[in-house]
Amino acid sequence: MIFDLAAPRANDELVFLPLGGAGEIGMNLNCYGYGPPDARKWIIVDCGVLFGREATTPGVDVMMPDIRFLEENREDVLGLVLTHGHEDHIGAVAHLWPRLRCPVYATPFTARLVRHKLEEAGLETRLRVKVVPLGGNLTLGPFAMEFISITHSIPEPNAIAIRTPLGVVVHTGDWKLDPDPQLGEVTNDARLRKLGEEGVLACVCDSTNALVPGESGSEADVKKSLHTLIGSLKGRVAVTAFASNVARLQSIADAARAHGREIVLVGRAMRHMVMCARETGYLRDFPKTREEEEAPLLPPNRALLLCTGSQGEPRAALARIAAGEHPYVSLGEGDSVIFSSRIIPGNDLSIFELQNQLAARGVAVLTEQDHFVHVSGHPCRDELAAMYAWVKPRIAIPVHGELRHMSEHARLARELQVPEAVVLQNGEMLRLAPGKAEVIDEAPAGRLHLDGNVLLHEDEGLARGRRSLAYAGFIGVTLVLDRKGRPAADPVVHMEGVPDVVREPVREAIERALNGKRKGGGDIKEQVRIAARRAANDIWGKKPVVRVETVEI
Amino acid sequence: MIFDLAAPRANDELVFLPLGGAGEIGMNLNCYGYGPPDARKWIIVDCGVLFGREATTPGVDVMMPDIRFLEENREDVLGLVLTHGHEDHIGAVAHLWPRLRCPVYATPFTARLVRHKLEEAGLETRLRVKVVPLGGNLTLGPFAMEFISITHSIPEPNAIAIRTPLGVVVHTGDWKLDPDPQLGEVTNDARLRKLGEEGVLACVCDSTNALVPGESGSEADVKKSLHTLIGSLKGRVAVTAFASNVARLQSIADAARAHGREIVLVGRAMRHMVMCARETGYLRDFPKTREEEEAPLLPPNRALLLCTGSQGEPRAALARIAAGEHPYVSLGEGDSVIFSSRIIPGNDLSIFELQNQLAARGVAVLTEQDHFVHVSGHPCRDELAAMYAWVKPRIAIPVHGELRHMSEHARLARELQVPEAVVLQNGEMLRLAPGKAEVIDEAPAGRLHLDGNVLLHEDEGLARGRRSLAYAGFIGVTLVLDRKGRPAADPVVHMEGVPDVVREPVREAIERALNGKRKGGGDIKEQVRIAARRAANDIWGKKPVVRVETVEI
Repeated sequence: MIFDLAAPRANDELVFLPLGGAGEIGMNLNCYGYGPPDARKWIIVDCGVLFGREATTPGVDVMMPDIRFLEENREDVLGLVLTHGHEDHIGAVAHLWPRLRCPVYATPFTARLVRHKLEEAGLETRLRVKVVPLGGNLTLGPFAMEFISITHSIPEPNAIAIRTPLGVVVHTGDWKLDPDPQLGEVTNDARLRKLGEEGVLACVCDSTNALVPGESGSEADVKKSLHTLIGSLKGRVAVTAFASNVARLQSIADAARAHGREIVLVGRAMRHMVMCARETGYLRDFPKTREEEEAPLLPPNRALLLCTGSQGEPRAALARIAAGEHPYVSLGEGDSVIFSSRIIPGNDLSIFELQNQLAARGVAVLTEQDHFVHVSGHPCRDELAAMYAWVKPRIAIPVHGELRHMSEHARLARELQVPEAVVLQNGEMLRLAPGKAEVIDEAPAGRLHLDGNVLLHEDEGLARGRRSLAYAGFIGVTLVLDRKGRPAADPVVHMEGVPDVVREPVREAIERALNGKRKGGGDIKEQVRIAARRAANDIWGKKPVVRVETVEI
Repeated sequence: MIFDLAAPRANDELVFLPLGGAGEIGMNLNCYGYGPPDARKWIIVDCGVLFGREATTPGVDVMMPDIRFLEENREDVLGLVLTHGHEDHIGAVAHLWPRLRCPVYATPFTARLVRHKLEEAGLETRLRVKVVPLGGNLTLGPFAMEFISITHSIPEPNAIAIRTPLGVVVHTGDWKLDPDPQLGEVTNDARLRKLGEEGVLACVCDSTNALVPGESGSEADVKKSLHTLIGSLKGRVAVTAFASNVARLQSIADAARAHGREIVLVGRAMRHMVMCARETGYLRDFPKTREEEEAPLLPPNRALLLCTGSQGEPRAALARIAAGEHPYVSLGEGDSVIFSSRIIPGNDLSIFELQNQLAARGVAVLTEQDHFVHVSGHPCRDELAAMYAWVKPRIAIPVHGELRHMSEHARLARELQVPEAVVLQNGEMLRLAPGKAEVIDEAPAGRLHLDGNVLLHEDEGLARGRRSLAYAGFIGVTLVLDRKGRPAADPVVHMEGVPDVVREPVREAIERALNGKRKGGGDIKEQVRIAARRAANDIWGKKPVVRVETVEI
């Protein structure tokens, strides 16, 4: 079907449906639908993951959106468009694409990163990402999209202007304003202003820093500061940064070169990102790097170690160095580690533990708390104000935030005279046009957990169940019964994660339950379960998970 | 034995031994020993807890120091002296005192808080805390102690000057400098200067903010800011703060009164702390408070709700309000919550979740990120510099910090011309005099976990074991064997926290192991265990904890 962008049909609607990212900073997945309610065509913008937490989702590596709604409407999904290459925007592609099997579009650097993920998943022959040039255009059914260069903390961040017969939506992706981003284009504000003059229906916008006043700051200033700081240090210098912040890697490398230090890339992600950047035309002026194995050969004041692990990830390079377990790199008295990064919420204790290990070795630890070594990649309040002044949308839709960020973002947008500002939860379908913005439907929403290599819905409760085990352990009772349901041997009691003092009282309670109740069947199992749980609680003050199974001989 | 403070005997040594707090902010327990190596007398300063973490110590409420060393030397422990009433200084008294049974000393407010804990533990008739007046003196054997008033974030914080025949130690406790603390004395800097002039051997000092430049700021300024902020708000206003920060409660109450709002105390700890403060002579000008039950009767702009739960504690008042589950208090559109507190590391995600719930109700959330509503109770670098200038110790011993804080604190002390600065780990016994400061011995050190109501050593591994369950679940296999060790019934398999896809492959692997190996005994159990674990890993990519038990019929 050919759509006339200038002529909506009578029943056409334009709707926006976030399935991820409206309520969390992570697992971004946004859907735009166009057409009459019974025959909408869909495009998806981004398909990311959110990292699991040991406290709340133990054993879960990453989480991603439940896309049941899209699977059910698979025939009408025209494509998946990726704004940029961060994990929270592309990390779920290899996991979820087999359920969608739609074309995927991205600019060259992002496409290169996705290709690697597809190779790891063995999907590279089934899915080839279609490459869109920077500033390029892409039309899928009723959606005529234009990629608009913006600035962020990774190469090739894009906003997408989505033109439909019912109006234009500016989907900002992740962005900030940086007049001197060190790598790639500056934000194409001329294009955004032009769209604003033509009239923008809605702006779907990054909320990450909506609580932070002022501006996020420029990479150019970080570069200057790192230059001075690295110049002031003796001994080995290690710098840890997000590997995908390629501009930062360049700034660090430039400072190293200026002070006569050679770059050693330490950690797989660091080497991989530098390779992907070079393959796609970036880092042309990056100095020749040394292999990890060569680190011991360099004099301390001639080396700069660029390391993965700024978030305290236990298997990353810096954690292994701090633990004294890295095969080639060791740090000690007189050496320094610069954390050119921020603390992502939830990672503080892991990062502090890492810093404590470094401090125990006599290594000086320099962070954004005490030195200017990092700027955020997301817009603070003054930058949001600039965006709304350029784009002048009728509707502001905060995404990419928890509720506290999105609520404050909406409040700010209203202050800035945006006529409508709507805070959505994942799964709420918002009609953008015609008429006033209104939630008209709800799609299933939730999280899928990658648990080991199995993808499970959070509602299956596997991680939640293990959280109960973590709190109070497990007691598994096996009752051996004869054909008449009478105990035929001593019950077998598995106890895991409960203290020794619990063992005997629980055994005795099970015996008492069995002696008092010889009828067998489901009832005896429940009697034993309750007795064991109660006995544990009486002595320990906590109730383990108790399961009872029977075997008949 | 009577000690002549002016005349050390030939073999006398003065030693310092931290058993908690040297390596963590929490569970402070410091020991001072005096005498010849084979006949030292001991005093203990503080006896606190550290809170458990769901990620690293699941199911553990609080942790406290392993005091085996003191138990073994119980006859020579002269007493326990408490500097102030925070949980990380007094929280372990009721748990550990039965192992020590020594006299306990504290100033009136601290003694009142400890009494309550003893009552809860049923120990109030066995232990009566001996009350020392503010600025009072206490001599225990060779230790002549003087309580010196300082400022902190709770009533009655004390430094202790410990005079011994071999020199004076200033043990700062937790402190800051505040010229106008709103409650209690200002820091008695005249006394500290005087001690410095007389000559101080060592200063054992708070490291919490050793990474933070400048000064911590004054409660008086927070009071002014809260006054303005609360005056600007319409609707219901809730303020959450640490209940023990009684000066803050007074500031909030004064602001409420000035703006025609009545105080409702919401949460048990809040009511308890106000009661203890009043009983010991504080809060004489505190307005009459309302009970929780009266909250619904007050017009929104006439109420100020003083709530527990600033750290996102799930059972505290604010969490229940945010969840809409509080029996008397509800907040919504137009209402505000002020977090007059900081985020304690590790609590960020819980606090943000709470704030998200409040945002979802339309409640405005105001925090120290966006308003001046909190100052720290610990000394920043300029304050540490002032202390060292007054006390002029020969030896600086940073405590009350993680390694990163203590290392930086020691670095700062050296910069400030303190001749020796020693970073200790829990259990390291430092000789302070005679001679150069030197680690001369090591005492057992570690953590005790309060797990339910059972006190266990961390090395028993109960929490660690449950952490494994949280990661990959549990499989418990019961083999029913006949007298010859041959399977006599189907094996019973308990599986908890593993996905359904694992069940059949594990069952089949167990069957195969049993069929291949009929000899029985310990060997068959291990064969089955390995087979089950391997089968789970093959299908799931994770290895559950597997236990195998046999029952003979």
